[in-house]
Amino acid sequence: MNNIKQEILKIYNDVHLKNPVIHNITNAVTINDCANVQLAVGGSPIMADDIGEVEDIVNIASCLVINIGTLNERTIQSMLLAGKSANSKGIPVIFDPVGAGASRLRDSTIKRILSDINVSVIKGNLGEIASIAGVQVCSKGVDSSLDEDSVNSIDIAKQVARTYKCVVGATGAVDIVTDGEKTITLHNGNSMMEKITGTGCMATALVGAYAGVSECKLIGTVGALGMLGVAGDIALEKSGNLGTASLRTALIDALSIIKEQELSERLVMNEK
Amino acid sequence: MNNIKQEILKIYNDVHLKNPVIHNITNAVTINDCANVQLAVGGSPIMADDIGEVEDIVNIASCLVINIGTLNERTIQSMLLAGKSANSKGIPVIFDPVGAGASRLRDSTIKRILSDINVSVIKGNLGEIASIAGVQVCSKGVDSSLDEDSVNSIDIAKQVARTYKCVVGATGAVDIVTDGEKTITLHNGNSMMEKITGTGCMATALVGAYAGVSECKLIGTVGALGMLGVAGDIALEKSGNLGTASLRTALIDALSIIKEQELSERLVMNEK
Amino acid sequence: MNNIKQEILKIYNDVHLKNPVIHNITNAVTINDCANVQLAVGGSPIMADDIGEVEDIVNIASCLVINIGTLNERTIQSMLLAGKSANSKGIPVIFDPVGAGASRLRDSTIKRILSDINVSVIKGNLGEIASIAGVQVCSKGVDSSLDEDSVNSIDIAKQVARTYKCVVGATGAVDIVTDGEKTITLHNGNSMMEKITGTGCMATALVGAYAGVSECKLIGTVGALGMLGVAGDIALEKSGNLGTASLRTALIDALSIIKEQELSERLVMNEK
Repeated sequence: MNNIKQEILKIYNDVHLKNPVIHNITNAVTINDCANVQLAVGGSPIMADDIGEVEDIVNIASCLVINIGTLNERTIQSMLLAGKSANSKGIPVIFDPVGAGASRLRDSTIKRILSDINVSVIKGNLGEIASIAGVQVCSKGVDSSLDEDSVNSIDIAKQVARTYKCVVGATGAVDIVTDGEKTITLHNGNSMMEKITGTGCMATALVGAYAGVSECKLIGTVGALGMLGVAGDIALEKSGNLGTASLRTALIDALSIIKEQELSERLVMNEK
Repeated sequence: MNNIKQEILKIYNDVHLKNPVIHNITNAVTINDCANVQLAVGGSPIMADDIGEVEDIVNIASCLVINIGTLNERTIQSMLLAGKSANSKGIPVIFDPVGAGASRLRDSTIKRILSDINVSVIKGNLGEIASIAGVQVCSKGVDSSLDEDSVNSIDIAKQVARTYKCVVGATGAVDIVTDGEKTITLHNGNSMMEKITGTGCMATALVGAYAGVSECKLIGTVGALGMLGVAGDIALEKSGNLGTASLRTALIDALSIIKEQELSERLVMNEK
Repeated sequence: MNNIKQEILKIYNDVHLKNPVIHNITNAVTINDCANVQLAVGGSPIMADDIGEVEDIVNIASCLVINIGTLNERTIQSMLLAGKSANSKGIPVIFDPVGAGASRLRDSTIKRILSDINVSVIKGNLGEIASIAGVQVCSKGVDSSLDEDSVNSIDIAKQVARTYKCVVGATGAVDIVTDGEKTITLHNGNSMMEKITGTGCMATALVGAYAGVSECKLIGTVGALGMLGVAGDIALEKSGNLGTASLRTALIDALSIIKEQELSERLVMNEK
């Protein structure tokens, strides 16, 4: 895994150096957090969701992030047009199918995005990824659960990666990242992070920042999810006993100040 | 009041145990805070306001919260459809008439919601409740003031509760909760909480979490407003001298870590 | 400059005393921060962007703030109507052309707002102001850079002020405020503030609060930008080493607790 760590640290440095512009079409709940985590790691976020400008914004961006957390008829059209523009331009599209399985509108939108747009990375919680795979999960709105780190979970993630010819990041107690062939599991992070809204969206936002400078989307996704997990561990140590709002502050703080060496030392990954 | 405290503590525990899914159609200003306070007390929030999915989301929810803080033509339609769906399904509807009296659009929307939908709880500041009652108040946009804890204020709250056959939570220096017959006043909280945007919305969000598991909406509302007041007191003690942003962090922190016993000991209520 | 400081302190006190209602049509990313900073300095924010109510809301407001950070077809119409209403009523309009130059939609909207509405203050970063002046800048989405404090930058700001007969606040390492004749530069603040999303929007929100009580828009703008710069300095001293989220908390904290004397002592301005 030392090779992979080296590549992740290179991405970490590249984002700070190149400040990639990341075009986000995201949800109203966590839009501020998404911008702040991208800034924290060195990215340059721009949030723009009007159909009249998404093509122009894609044009100055290194990466497009689509998050359907609070999708609506207006923004769905913008997502589709932005995604196609990103494909034309050749920049990566990161897709977070928030709440997959919670409504028919979400499911039909997910289907349409995945059929009309070539996405580079699908990042969801394991329940959302399973929903895309057509596997029944017990959904509780935008949260869900499933056995992580089981062969079954990895198989589901692999299946989705192969079907859509992309990298899949499936988050949970253990995060799974796979391109359908190579699979890496990540073991940082903690359950307290689920008590803050938007950790999932922040993960996707970070993938956007990392994918904006990384040739290899698998390593970019591993790096982004690993970074968030490590920041979550640091945050829990610093403020876990204070409460959830302090934990959120400490989480973004950690993303903004963590140094290469600490990231490298704390990161726990396995290749499956 | 010991009986009521026991019931509140039961709700407190039930939310942590059952993690009710709460469907929120709320405003853009405080949507993140609303999600975070519901998570802090054990709820499972989902924010969804497109007319194409609100019926599906109501279907997986235990409670619907409607907050008109930044209403628009699109979301008003979603509120109405979601409210009717919630009525059909038999889950409670919590309604926050933010800025009642500040514009004709708000007033006509409030009228329409209250005529088309059976709401379980109306939660507003005293000025908003007075506006619904048709009493002239000096409105300053979304803030307002009126003598709380006066017989007059209680009468106004009772009148609204009787007219709409629901529980009314009217917040201010003293919070009033009434079903038109039984009235309970709450005496926690402090004026520093008004220097943070969204404490009113957080109160409503908490009512949503508590109403999602409580048979008795009167006690659910008392519990939620009491919880926020107590958290505000703890927050002021911990961080009041640091400034308003620290107060907000401490407020959400307190909601997330307060234990039964402290809640019970600090809660100050009176039956009128 | 002592005269100007006295006038700024008068505005500082007036906002706390009069709690002006500020009508904001702003973006989804920083809407919560904008409300919180206005509350922190004594203002009474109301966020309302539906075309069906903006005239009523302008009617109860002392000032209108228009920020196009996440503009869309719906809100552009509301901005135009609200702006015209504010002109009719005679209250100041503060305009933040976020992301000027980043898309044709932004540029055409800026053009339309500046042609249809008499704005009192244009507040942007130097790149946005240069874009309005028709000067080529290297734009990175909503961020941009240019040599501040150079004669050239001041000339650009002056040109925009003269063209639109308004005050221009151009922020950067040095902030420039000019009405086309008189020019004041502000030297507080620090580069760490750029690692938080929304410091630009917060600056505009503060101008809204200060312009809501100040006859002289030049001094109102100087006071608001000066206040934010000083708060940024205090925040950096208190929490700069903790990370960007703590810095944001400390920034809003400082706005809410800073006293006249400290503001006066820390404020560094020059008349050019």
